[in-house]
Amino acid sequence: HPVYISPRGSQLHAKNWPAEAALRMFLNNLSAQVAEDPEKLVVYGGIGQAARTPADARKIVELLLTLEEDESLLIQSGKPVGKIRSHAEAPRVLIANSNLVPKWATWEHFNQLRERGLMMYGQMTAGSWIYIGTQGILQGTYETFAACARKHYNGDLRHKLLVSGGLGGMGGAQPLAATMAGATFLGVDIDPERIRKRLETRYIDKMTFDYREAVRLALAAKDKGEAVSIGLVGDIGDVLEKLIQDGITPDILTDQTSAHDPLNGYVPHGMCLPQALALREVDPGEYRARSLRSMARHVGFMLEMQRRGSCTFDYGNNLREFAQQGGEPNAFQIPGFVPEYIRPLFCEGKGPFRWVALSGDPEDIRVTDEALKALFPENTNMINWLKQAQLKVDFQGLPSRICWLGMGEREKAGLLFNQLVRDGKVKAPIVIGRDHLDCGSVASPYRETEGMLDGSDAVSDWPLLNLMANTSGGATWVSFHHGGGVGMGYSQHAGMVILADGTDRADQSIRRVLHNDPATGIFRHADAGYEAAQETSEKFDLGL
Amino acid sequence: HPVYISPRGSQLHAKNWPAEAALRMFLNNLSAQVAEDPEKLVVYGGIGQAARTPADARKIVELLLTLEEDESLLIQSGKPVGKIRSHAEAPRVLIANSNLVPKWATWEHFNQLRERGLMMYGQMTAGSWIYIGTQGILQGTYETFAACARKHYNGDLRHKLLVSGGLGGMGGAQPLAATMAGATFLGVDIDPERIRKRLETRYIDKMTFDYREAVRLALAAKDKGEAVSIGLVGDIGDVLEKLIQDGITPDILTDQTSAHDPLNGYVPHGMCLPQALALREVDPGEYRARSLRSMARHVGFMLEMQRRGSCTFDYGNNLREFAQQGGEPNAFQIPGFVPEYIRPLFCEGKGPFRWVALSGDPEDIRVTDEALKALFPENTNMINWLKQAQLKVDFQGLPSRICWLGMGEREKAGLLFNQLVRDGKVKAPIVIGRDHLDCGSVASPYRETEGMLDGSDAVSDWPLLNLMANTSGGATWVSFHHGGGVGMGYSQHAGMVILADGTDRADQSIRRVLHNDPATGIFRHADAGYEAAQETSEKFDLGL
Ligand SMILES: NC(=O)c1ccc[n+]([C@@H]2O[C@H](COP(=O)([O-])OP(=O)(O)OC[C@H]3O[C@@H](n4cnc5c(N)ncnc54)[C@H](O)[C@@H]3O)[C@@H](O)[C@H]2O)c1
Ligand SMILES: NC(=O)c1ccc[n+]([C@@H]2O[C@H](COP(=O)([O-])OP(=O)(O)OC[C@H]3O[C@@H](n4cnc5c(N)ncnc54)[C@H](O)[C@@H]3O)[C@@H](O)[C@H]2O)c1
Repeated sequence: HPVYISPRGSQLHAKNWPAEAALRMFLNNLSAQVAEDPEKLVVYGGIGQAARTPADARKIVELLLTLEEDESLLIQSGKPVGKIRSHAEAPRVLIANSNLVPKWATWEHFNQLRERGLMMYGQMTAGSWIYIGTQGILQGTYETFAACARKHYNGDLRHKLLVSGGLGGMGGAQPLAATMAGATFLGVDIDPERIRKRLETRYIDKMTFDYREAVRLALAAKDKGEAVSIGLVGDIGDVLEKLIQDGITPDILTDQTSAHDPLNGYVPHGMCLPQALALREVDPGEYRARSLRSMARHVGFMLEMQRRGSCTFDYGNNLREFAQQGGEPNAFQIPGFVPEYIRPLFCEGKGPFRWVALSGDPEDIRVTDEALKALFPENTNMINWLKQAQLKVDFQGLPSRICWLGMGEREKAGLLFNQLVRDGKVKAPIVIGRDHLDCGSVASPYRETEGMLDGSDAVSDWPLLNLMANTSGGATWVSFHHGGGVGMGYSQHAGMVILADGTDRADQSIRRVLHNDPATGIFRHADAGYEAAQETSEKFDLGL
Repeated sequence: HPVYISPRGSQLHAKNWPAEAALRMFLNNLSAQVAEDPEKLVVYGGIGQAARTPADARKIVELLLTLEEDESLLIQSGKPVGKIRSHAEAPRVLIANSNLVPKWATWEHFNQLRERGLMMYGQMTAGSWIYIGTQGILQGTYETFAACARKHYNGDLRHKLLVSGGLGGMGGAQPLAATMAGATFLGVDIDPERIRKRLETRYIDKMTFDYREAVRLALAAKDKGEAVSIGLVGDIGDVLEKLIQDGITPDILTDQTSAHDPLNGYVPHGMCLPQALALREVDPGEYRARSLRSMARHVGFMLEMQRRGSCTFDYGNNLREFAQQGGEPNAFQIPGFVPEYIRPLFCEGKGPFRWVALSGDPEDIRVTDEALKALFPENTNMINWLKQAQLKVDFQGLPSRICWLGMGEREKAGLLFNQLVRDGKVKAPIVIGRDHLDCGSVASPYRETEGMLDGSDAVSDWPLLNLMANTSGGATWVSFHHGGGVGMGYSQHAGMVILADGTDRADQSIRRVLHNDPATGIFRHADAGYEAAQETSEKFDLGL
């Protein structure tokens, strides 16, 4: 299979920088340092792909190499299907992935189409060519913990104990995110291999099989206000039970076990891992039933901790739903993380802003980090993140940075980056993008739009307006996907990437797109009745 | 309630013609001559609205009156929700109507949201401000009959008998469309009032209660090659049964009874209308069961006619599905009208192109009609339509014309109209739009994308790419809807309208939009494997 490598440096291979940017980011998404399985074109998130087939990938590269500034390339579920007439202030690439007419919007129908070569799963940033590796989930987790700190602990997590289950692909970011946010962290995973991996990549500080030792270390660190992370091998339910018996109440409690999949994910209590793996094979029905009962028990202990004063929240793994099915009627008394911590950020237009140095030179990211700190000297949360990210985050593929910025800030940051390119302070243009999980770009009633004030969780006019706004504003490429995060039938969302190549055109487009993109999030939340969004709307004069 | 009247003449009320065009078309959609129920803001098609509430309608007017050329207005299910930064070559209005995350995309959930004031049903052209009255359905029906003629009768329907059931809101266009296409028409409706109405508006020529008389008139006209239309009061199933007994086989057979609704639409056989209405109230279950059985019987006779040589097709009223439920296992041996007659047109990029004279002067439409005839002297089908439309179609609201044009033709027509405006040959700018039922703009597996060659019926990446293409190309307003035509859960589709105001900007945008819009239809059908579309692609050099 072909090896995908993104060009670096300041030389053009395509005919213009907008096309070159799309080319580099497409190849970066598929490069071995970034993609989970480049051979299958899988970038992340299950089967989230960047192109449908290797032949399509090759064709995309060819077409981007010759794309003119008055043309746009159309991508349908990872396949290039046409070129249209366009102009310089319009996107160079228009992307639609995995979209299905609602009645047919199921995994079953999707898989049939996929097997016949007609579709591809785009996830969120995989199919829209702006995935940048695990930094994204690290920052998202950090941002959640920081928001929790602001809401409950005056923004300070020192002397606070954060407990969570699950240290796998996503959950493994928790220990580092927690210590970056200043907390003491105790994480529990049934699989020692998972914790060992975090130890190797320095995402976690200590590992133990001994409950007593873990508690002693955690309490000592908490006492001294040390940001230390401890991984304990065990069942999260059992550990919570013991903590309750010992009268130890975490300040913050959440969970990232693979609860979304009661058969192939979550491990039921009362059995070790090899036993569990055996039971899965032999008697899946029994396994599933035990999983659901274990989750009910697990959530029962979380509810007890909540009563005892822990800030307890669900972290998007569908644990509540299955605990309820398993017999815990009060599972949904635990709030979801979006309404609790992320939505207040959305109401300020904040979301997962990110950028990539197309030069490939890490020094370019350092330059942007420093410039950003100087631009927003009062944003201590952001400055703290950038400082720690510089120390602790290894780049994957093209050097990149993620950092949540709000209404107003995004436009300023974009113009600043364009100025850095224009002045030659960085060696090549910079692309700016974001996750589809953002304030104005997604409708997903089980995650991003859970429990909207006015009940408009399922209304997907909003991400479509976001798409139209970014397309008309002149983002460099735009995308619309279905089924990201929570699967087929459950979400619709829009992506965008915009190039800062030091031109006046880029200034114009940035002024429009990086203003409009968060503005649609303000419109959406203000319309739903959120006062914070209405205040942001007033502050930025966005009202009608 | 407010009375909606569109301004006419060549004076601007808004700050620029693009905004004025949106203003006039919005008000035209809601005017008494066009809308079915202006008080409820209902334009057509059940509850298809142009704005969510009267307050929203007023606000839309206010905002359009002050909209600048570097702004765009966002409309979410008929409510204005924000203004964004834009530029002159981008749309002035961005519209998203009735879109729901698939899992929640049902009438039940939609109605809940609608009752809470959060949504509106946009149908197709109602919510995207380009409905022009019944001329649209007349032309669509004409185009279908003409395509049938080309496929089976060398384009000539003289001496051909066309039989159909249902002469209601849409079906009532059949007699006029059939005679315009040259055929002899026999239509059957159980409700005499419906036929009487068609007589008044001169859509039908004769009406009778007597089967013998109807047959005598029809056969005589067919013999002489007279394009005459006859309305017979009766049950369509009974009439087909008698025709079979009498050995009379129509050349073309279809149906537009309200079969989509077995309870409140279709009237079961063996009972007169007042009896039926009574049974509906008293025993809806029994009524529905009888309806399904009657449809099975009705389709059974259609299948017999098909065996005897009638060109028989389903006309998008879901008759086959209910006949199957009622006990006719072979119902789907009758082909749908789209795969049979419309898809070949789609493969040439042909679709329901339409335009409106913003001056309000019918003379302007006459000028465009003549100019178009001169531009395409070889397009006899189009010229025949235009000639007859000039004679037989009364304008509703602002004078308008609809006429199916294909790839290449649309762009030429648009540039021609822009020239007419520039040269002062017409008194004010002209807007150009289309129905959402077009070659590249809709995914609707029970109608427009039924039975695609490659099985991609439900893939809705295509209308999204169409939306993005028209947004980036600089259409004057664009829209994306869910549920038009076939209801919630069953379709997704994009709309666009572009202004010809005589400027160079309009020339540029027309060159892009009226090329790209049908081109996305060619891409879609070529990708699905239609040879005709692949040929069109080659002819216009659209391949990659
Ligand atoms: N919050 C978000 O934004 C977000 C984003 C993506 C995914 N998620 C959800 O978070 C969850 C975790 O994702 P992941 O990628 O880390 O999954 P993963 O499968 O890589 O890791 C899950 C971990 O949980 C452990 N585990 C299972 N049962 C356990 C038990 N009873 N006690 C202790 N440990 C147990 C497993 O050993 C494994 O290491 C998923 O449900 C995912 O859908 C959340
Ligand atoms: N092909 C298309 O593009 C297209 C577009 C829109 C709608 N439709 C479908 O066409 C159908 C007709 O639409 P409409 O707006 O005219 O509906 P309508 O309700 O206005 O008219 C239906 C007519 O059928 C008559 N009818 C009912 N049962 C009958 C029977 N057994 N025998 C004789 N007549 C009978 C009724 O009296 C009525 O006049 C609908 O199902 C609609 O969904 C097709």
